[in-house]
Amino acid sequence: MIYLDNGATTYPKPKSVIASVTRAMTEFGANAGRGAYKMAVDTTEQIYLCRKTVADFFGCPSSENIIFTYNCTMALNIAIKGLAVRGAHFVISDLEHNAVLRPLEKLSADGVCSYSIAKVEYDEQKTLENFENALRSNTVAIICTGASNVFGIIPPLKALSRLAHKNGSLFIVDSAQTAGVLPINMTDDGIDILCCAGHKGLMGPTGTGILIFACDIPLNTIIEGGTGSNSALAVQPSVLPDRFESGTPNIPGIIGLHRGIEFVNEAGAKNICRHEIKLIKYLQRNLENSRRIKLYTDFFDSSQNLAPILSFNIDGMHSEQTAAILAESGIAVRAGLHCAPLAHRKMNTEDTGTVRICPSFFTKKSDIDFVIKSIRKIAN
Amino acid sequence: MIYLDNGATTYPKPKSVIASVTRAMTEFGANAGRGAYKMAVDTTEQIYLCRKTVADFFGCPSSENIIFTYNCTMALNIAIKGLAVRGAHFVISDLEHNAVLRPLEKLSADGVCSYSIAKVEYDEQKTLENFENALRSNTVAIICTGASNVFGIIPPLKALSRLAHKNGSLFIVDSAQTAGVLPINMTDDGIDILCCAGHKGLMGPTGTGILIFACDIPLNTIIEGGTGSNSALAVQPSVLPDRFESGTPNIPGIIGLHRGIEFVNEAGAKNICRHEIKLIKYLQRNLENSRRIKLYTDFFDSSQNLAPILSFNIDGMHSEQTAAILAESGIAVRAGLHCAPLAHRKMNTEDTGTVRICPSFFTKKSDIDFVIKSIRKIAN
Repeated sequence: MIYLDNGATTYPKPKSVIASVTRAMTEFGANAGRGAYKMAVDTTEQIYLCRKTVADFFGCPSSENIIFTYNCTMALNIAIKGLAVRGAHFVISDLEHNAVLRPLEKLSADGVCSYSIAKVEYDEQKTLENFENALRSNTVAIICTGASNVFGIIPPLKALSRLAHKNGSLFIVDSAQTAGVLPINMTDDGIDILCCAGHKGLMGPTGTGILIFACDIPLNTIIEGGTGSNSALAVQPSVLPDRFESGTPNIPGIIGLHRGIEFVNEAGAKNICRHEIKLIKYLQRNLENSRRIKLYTDFFDSSQNLAPILSFNIDGMHSEQTAAILAESGIAVRAGLHCAPLAHRKMNTEDTGTVRICPSFFTKKSDIDFVIKSIRKIAN
Repeated sequence: MIYLDNGATTYPKPKSVIASVTRAMTEFGANAGRGAYKMAVDTTEQIYLCRKTVADFFGCPSSENIIFTYNCTMALNIAIKGLAVRGAHFVISDLEHNAVLRPLEKLSADGVCSYSIAKVEYDEQKTLENFENALRSNTVAIICTGASNVFGIIPPLKALSRLAHKNGSLFIVDSAQTAGVLPINMTDDGIDILCCAGHKGLMGPTGTGILIFACDIPLNTIIEGGTGSNSALAVQPSVLPDRFESGTPNIPGIIGLHRGIEFVNEAGAKNICRHEIKLIKYLQRNLENSRRIKLYTDFFDSSQNLAPILSFNIDGMHSEQTAAILAESGIAVRAGLHCAPLAHRKMNTEDTGTVRICPSFFTKKSDIDFVIKSIRKIAN
C-alpha cells in the first residue's frame, strides 16, 4: 500500500511511538494525577513531560496551559463554546473544517452566537480586508485554519492575529493539518488558542488532541468532572490544566504523542516540511500539464506559501470513483468533501469533491512516481 | 508491586489487550469511517465490531446506539447536558462521583437546571421513598451510580428505574465502577442511558469511554464536528452514532477495548465478580476485628449486594498517610476523596478521606494476605 491519506492520520507511525504506547501500558499503567504510589507518580510525571515538550514545541510559555483532549475537534469545541457567551460573534475563514463550522452553526441555531465567514483570497491584502469587514465590536475571536485540509491554502495568520488583537478579539488557530508540518510559534505568531490533532503531523496515536492557551483565558467549560484536585468542591477547579481535563486521560496515547513530537524534533520539523513540499511540488509538476487532470492550485505559486496537500479531479469522474480505482492499485487517498464543505464551495468542487493527496515524512519519491503513473493511466 | 487501585484503572491489562493495541497501530492505522481504501475499510470494520460486542455485552438492542467517548466523564457530560433544557430537574444519589455532581452544579450555577440529591439507605424501601420524594414533574432523569466508587454500596437500580419511568423520567446509570464486574443488562435493568469507562472492569486501555442509549433519545449535542457523514451539511448529522462522535476516535484504544471485553467474556463476568468479591470479603473478615481499623461496611452484609471495593482508615491517621506507608511496602492503593465528596459526606469521612482497596481478576489471595499483614502492622 502507498499511503497518502496522512491528512486523515499519519501512517505509519514511527516505530518508537508504537513501542512507547506498548511500554506505557505496562510501565505506566496507573491512572495519572491521582494516586501517590510509585507507578501513579511515574505515570503523572510522563504526562507532565509530554506537556512540557508540547509547550516547548509550540512556543507556549507554560506547561500548565497544555490541555490534552480526545481529538482536535474536542479542543476546538472547548475553545469555541468556552467563548460563546450570549450575543458573541465569531469570524471564521471560508476554509474551515466542520469541526469549526458545525459548533458555530449549532450556537447560531440555538440563538446564542452568530458568526461571519471571511474569504481567503490569493491577494493577502484583500483577505485582510475581508476579515476586517467581518469584524464587529462583539467579535470574541477570529478562528482560522493553519492550512486548508483540502487545498493546502495557508491564510496569512500573523496578519490575521494583528487584526484580531486590534479589534480586542482573540486569535484561534486550527492546526489539525499543520502542527508538526509547518512552523508554529504561538508567541511569535500571536496565537491565543491553538488546537491540534496529536495523530497527524505530530505522529502520535489517534485519541489525542491538544488545546493550548497562550495565557490563562477565562473560558467556560463544556465538560466537568473528577480532576483528582480539589475533590471536595462541587465546582470545577479553575486552575489549568485541570479546568479542562476531567476524568481519566488517554495515558498511552499521550505518552506515544510525546514520543511522536520527539521524533519530529529529531527528524527536524523543517526537514519534514521540506520533504513533503518537495514531493507535492513534484507531483504537481507532473500532473499539471495533463489535459484531463484538474489541480486546484490557483493559490500555489512561488510567491505563496503552501501546505503539502494536493487536491485533484479527473474530468468527468467523481472523486470517489477515482479514489476507488487508485485503491485497487494499492494507493490510499481520500476522496469526497473531507469534512470541509466551505472549502469545496469556495473552489466549486461541492458536487464531485476532490481526491486529496497528503504525503508524510515516510513517503518516498518512488511512491509519488507510482501515483503519477496511476493517475495518468486513469486520465488517459 | 501489589496493585489494588483497580477502581482508578485496571492493572495489569490482559496481554491480549496490549497486543491488540500494538497491532492496531500497524494493521489498522487508517482513520475510521472516512476513506474507501482497504485499510480504512478494515479499520472502520474493527470499530463496528467493537460496537457490536459492547451492545451484546450490555443487552443493548442496536450497535448504532454505542457511542465511543474519551472517558466515562465525557459520556456522562454528553448525557446530562444533552437533557439539560432550561428548567429541567435531575435527581441523583448521594453516592455520585464528581463526573455527575460537577456538571449538574455547573448547570445549576448557570441557572439552566436544578438537581436534588436522594439518600441511598440500608433499607431499600427508604431509599425508594427518598428518590420518590425528590422527583418532580420536570425531572428529566434519575442519575445513579452502579456502585459507589468509594464504599461499594449498590443502589437498587431496577426499582429506581421503575420509579423514574413511572414519573416519565429517564434512568441513567454511571457504571464506571461496575461495567465488567457486576452484571448489567440495559433491557432487563431498565437503563435508558449507560455510561461506562472502557479502562476499568472492561479491561481496555485508558482513553476509552462508552455512552450507550437503549433507544434513540433526542439528546442535544455538546460537541459537533466532522463525522465523515453528510459532510456537505453545516448541521451535525442526527443519526447515531455519528451525532455524538465527531472527529477522529481513539482507534487503537477501541480495538484494545474490544479485546478487553472479549477477555471478560472468556474469563466469565460472573467468575470475575465472584473472585473479586471473595477477596474483598476475605479482606473484610481479616480487618474487621482490629480495634484501630475502621471499615465502612455498614452496608455490607449477606442480605445486601456489594461491589468489590473496600474503604478503610486507621484511627488517628489521614488516609493519605496510610496509603503512603503502604506504598513503601509496594502496595498501590488510592487515598483521599476519590472524586466523590458526596459519598464521603454521607459516611463522615470528608476530613480524612479513606484508603480504598479494589482488587481485579488478576489479584491473588496471597496479595491480600500481604495487604492484611501490612495494614495490621501500621495499625498496631
